[in-house]
Amino acid sequence: MQLSLGELAQHLGAELRGDAGIMIRGVATLQDAGAGMVSFLANPSYRSQLAGSAASAVIVAADVADEAPCATLVVKNPYLSFALVTQLFDNRPQPRAGIHASAVIAASARLGNNVSIGPNVVIGEHCELGDGCEIGANTVISDHCVLGAGCILRANVTLYHDVVLGERVQIHSGTVIGADGFGFAPDKGRWHKIAQLGGVRIGNDVEIGANTCIDRGALGNTEIGDNVILDNLIQIAHNVKVGDGTAMAACTGIAGSTSIGKHCTLGGNAGVAGHLDIADGVHIAGKALISKSITEAGAYSSATPQMPMQEWRRNAVRFRQLDDMAKRLQKLEKSQEGKV
Amino acid sequence: MQLSLGELAQHLGAELRGDAGIMIRGVATLQDAGAGMVSFLANPSYRSQLAGSAASAVIVAADVADEAPCATLVVKNPYLSFALVTQLFDNRPQPRAGIHASAVIAASARLGNNVSIGPNVVIGEHCELGDGCEIGANTVISDHCVLGAGCILRANVTLYHDVVLGERVQIHSGTVIGADGFGFAPDKGRWHKIAQLGGVRIGNDVEIGANTCIDRGALGNTEIGDNVILDNLIQIAHNVKVGDGTAMAACTGIAGSTSIGKHCTLGGNAGVAGHLDIADGVHIAGKALISKSITEAGAYSSATPQMPMQEWRRNAVRFRQLDDMAKRLQKLEKSQEGKV
Amino acid sequence: MQLSLGELAQHLGAELRGDAGIMIRGVATLQDAGAGMVSFLANPSYRSQLAGSAASAVIVAADVADEAPCATLVVKNPYLSFALVTQLFDNRPQPRAGIHASAVIAASARLGNNVSIGPNVVIGEHCELGDGCEIGANTVISDHCVLGAGCILRANVTLYHDVVLGERVQIHSGTVIGADGFGFAPDKGRWHKIAQLGGVRIGNDVEIGANTCIDRGALGNTEIGDNVILDNLIQIAHNVKVGDGTAMAACTGIAGSTSIGKHCTLGGNAGVAGHLDIADGVHIAGKALISKSITEAGAYSSATPQMPMQEWRRNAVRFRQLDDMAKRLQKLEKSQEGKV
Repeated sequence: MQLSLGELAQHLGAELRGDAGIMIRGVATLQDAGAGMVSFLANPSYRSQLAGSAASAVIVAADVADEAPCATLVVKNPYLSFALVTQLFDNRPQPRAGIHASAVIAASARLGNNVSIGPNVVIGEHCELGDGCEIGANTVISDHCVLGAGCILRANVTLYHDVVLGERVQIHSGTVIGADGFGFAPDKGRWHKIAQLGGVRIGNDVEIGANTCIDRGALGNTEIGDNVILDNLIQIAHNVKVGDGTAMAACTGIAGSTSIGKHCTLGGNAGVAGHLDIADGVHIAGKALISKSITEAGAYSSATPQMPMQEWRRNAVRFRQLDDMAKRLQKLEKSQEGKV
Repeated sequence: MQLSLGELAQHLGAELRGDAGIMIRGVATLQDAGAGMVSFLANPSYRSQLAGSAASAVIVAADVADEAPCATLVVKNPYLSFALVTQLFDNRPQPRAGIHASAVIAASARLGNNVSIGPNVVIGEHCELGDGCEIGANTVISDHCVLGAGCILRANVTLYHDVVLGERVQIHSGTVIGADGFGFAPDKGRWHKIAQLGGVRIGNDVEIGANTCIDRGALGNTEIGDNVILDNLIQIAHNVKVGDGTAMAACTGIAGSTSIGKHCTLGGNAGVAGHLDIADGVHIAGKALISKSITEAGAYSSATPQMPMQEWRRNAVRFRQLDDMAKRLQKLEKSQEGKV
Repeated sequence: MQLSLGELAQHLGAELRGDAGIMIRGVATLQDAGAGMVSFLANPSYRSQLAGSAASAVIVAADVADEAPCATLVVKNPYLSFALVTQLFDNRPQPRAGIHASAVIAASARLGNNVSIGPNVVIGEHCELGDGCEIGANTVISDHCVLGAGCILRANVTLYHDVVLGERVQIHSGTVIGADGFGFAPDKGRWHKIAQLGGVRIGNDVEIGANTCIDRGALGNTEIGDNVILDNLIQIAHNVKVGDGTAMAACTGIAGSTSIGKHCTLGGNAGVAGHLDIADGVHIAGKALISKSITEAGAYSSATPQMPMQEWRRNAVRFRQLDDMAKRLQKLEKSQEGKV
């Protein structure tokens, strides 16, 4: 795979400053790139690496283009252009077309054109797979699932019954969509299962990482909007709604019936309690615990800062005395006032 | 699937106020229910929705029955009755009876009556499956496992060797039971593996969510009591004991050799350190870190509250000065005392 | 499996005090061991159990050997010797030699001598497996993976393409190595995928627990050093580097491009933010959030201590007033100074 700089510029809609005939065979960081590689500068903190880069070309914004020691592809959003270039040079092995002989596909399932079904895949009754879907080895799709065109499920994914995916949804290995929500009624010291009668509805252009869980609804569906991106090891409980364009980093958990707005971001291992409403445009820091609804866009946090262990021990013990300290402070203030 | 209100009342042991002949074909929330649907009121915060519900019948406690605009099924514990009704209307596809041709079952394995074994299931030597067990597609059960009657393992579950399940245990997809505990002896800067020689013992009527891990014991077993309910993405380390009726929400972790009492609840992403004893009836809040044993029933927490980021930054930095603040407060108090 | 005490002593390089002919058939804790069992004392807090143990022999350090009521194997590092003994008595079922008929192995894959390939295993094009590798049932290895000699992948593991393992790497069930890193470029309210072009490189003598994720690099590789041990449900993001001999407990997460030094330990559910450098020999407490680089070896924490809920409520609310309290304290001090 090689492209000329001219072709790249055209693909990106970039202004090319340099020789359009230079051939590019890959993409690398400013530090690692050598001849034949294109690099990029998106994060200002790497600006100092630009002048010394051995790349054959760099993708940059106009204001720093002059600092580059090589050809430049000048664009408005260098990070976006970098993303588009990585897609051009994607080296993922292409799946074999057609249906592997070992796959077990129900007679009532309907498959679109140009689907690729890997070894040992199991597809249940009345499933519908749109054109161009790729299903990785050993993945299981239960009855009554619908996959829009262009969905990619990697190896060892599990979809329970009645899971509906939009178009171009990617799901990574180990992820489980549609397992029973965690619903039990207590009575006389015992838990009684609430059958989870709802399903899962996922929009278009969604990507879901590895070993993530999205539970089916108890009554009604769990719903993930368009262009939502979820990292690995995330828990989405039953009847959660996630708005369009929201991103969650790994190890995050959303408890049951909570609604997350559009274009939110959640840092790694953030947790949101159940039955809350989080507004659009909310940004939650890593490891934050959100236990009340948030009605205004903005950034929120709750964690405590790191310290060397000795220092931490001295301070953490005082956390248990905070209320006492606050009251003593008030008392001193009152006594002070009395004297003024 | 349809039932008359009279049949429903009989099944629930409910007092029916209304027409026993009304036919019910599903269950929904007060807000979503329409004609032919039964709803319920269990959480007082939804009481205001009762009068406006379009449900054909609602399950309620006696004290609010008069507020319903439709037939009522009057019971002591509406949430329990709701659970029983969801079970009646469970729409989960029933597994095909018998053993799929692609399953790989050791000759020495013994299967009870009416078992259902899905495609590509692997069952090892000397396993015993009780009557009515269902094993989902692509699940692997290693040697010497015992499953009591009525166990349900969904697709892509893994049981290592020597895992013993009681009766009616349900395990969701991606869950791994019996992987090696995390045991290593350090010596001269290297880790040496401690072979994990124990197994896992799980009681009756246990449900385990998706992508959860329960490790085998190092010496002796990891033990889960009867009627324990575990959500998704939970870590139960080697030699942990979990008492009967305890419930854990998603993303919780219990470190090695810790004992959790009976009828405890753990909120999402709670963590309990190793070698601790947690008494019966302890309720641990979400994201709490428990690093000391708890000897008395009751509720416990450790997390910090959410704040807008600007406010959080100002306060969090003070957490590192807490000990200093406490000492300065004491000094002021002493100085004050000197003057009084 | 039985060994004489004499044989055990020789294997461990231990000084035997007692009858070399005593036969040992297993290993147990001081409390549980009976006749025919060997036990050990490594943790001083169990010293009181030594005199009362019914074990036939115990592994001890020289200073406590006299307290044992039975034969002793005197060694410098009893915990290491215990580890070696568990390996002798390992009861894990040995995998069947050879390739199961149901495995799907690409014609271009090269397998070493004495490999064991379980049922329904899928191995992609151009993979290389070293001598003695064991691949558990239903595991998927994508194209261009390389496994050094003696690697053990348990059931239901997933390796994406271009994952390279050193020798004697063990990977437990449900673990996913090489899934796409979480990289997306935002533009006009939409996320655009950054194709993840790098791979994963894992050293020798590494063990990785169940349901753990190690993502492939965006550009360049994600790298795990020699003798690293990772527990269950861990997230290692793209382009992370983990130094030799580092250990991570369950539910820990390392965000993208962070470098963790050699011989570090991370407690359960610790989290390290992205683009940080953590020095060698750093020990991070459970549930700690590390959001700044650490340049010096030592122990670090950030969490808050557990409290009964009522007490916690009173203190946690004050966390939001901390900055205010600090300023009021300063004011009182100034006023005090003015008077002195």
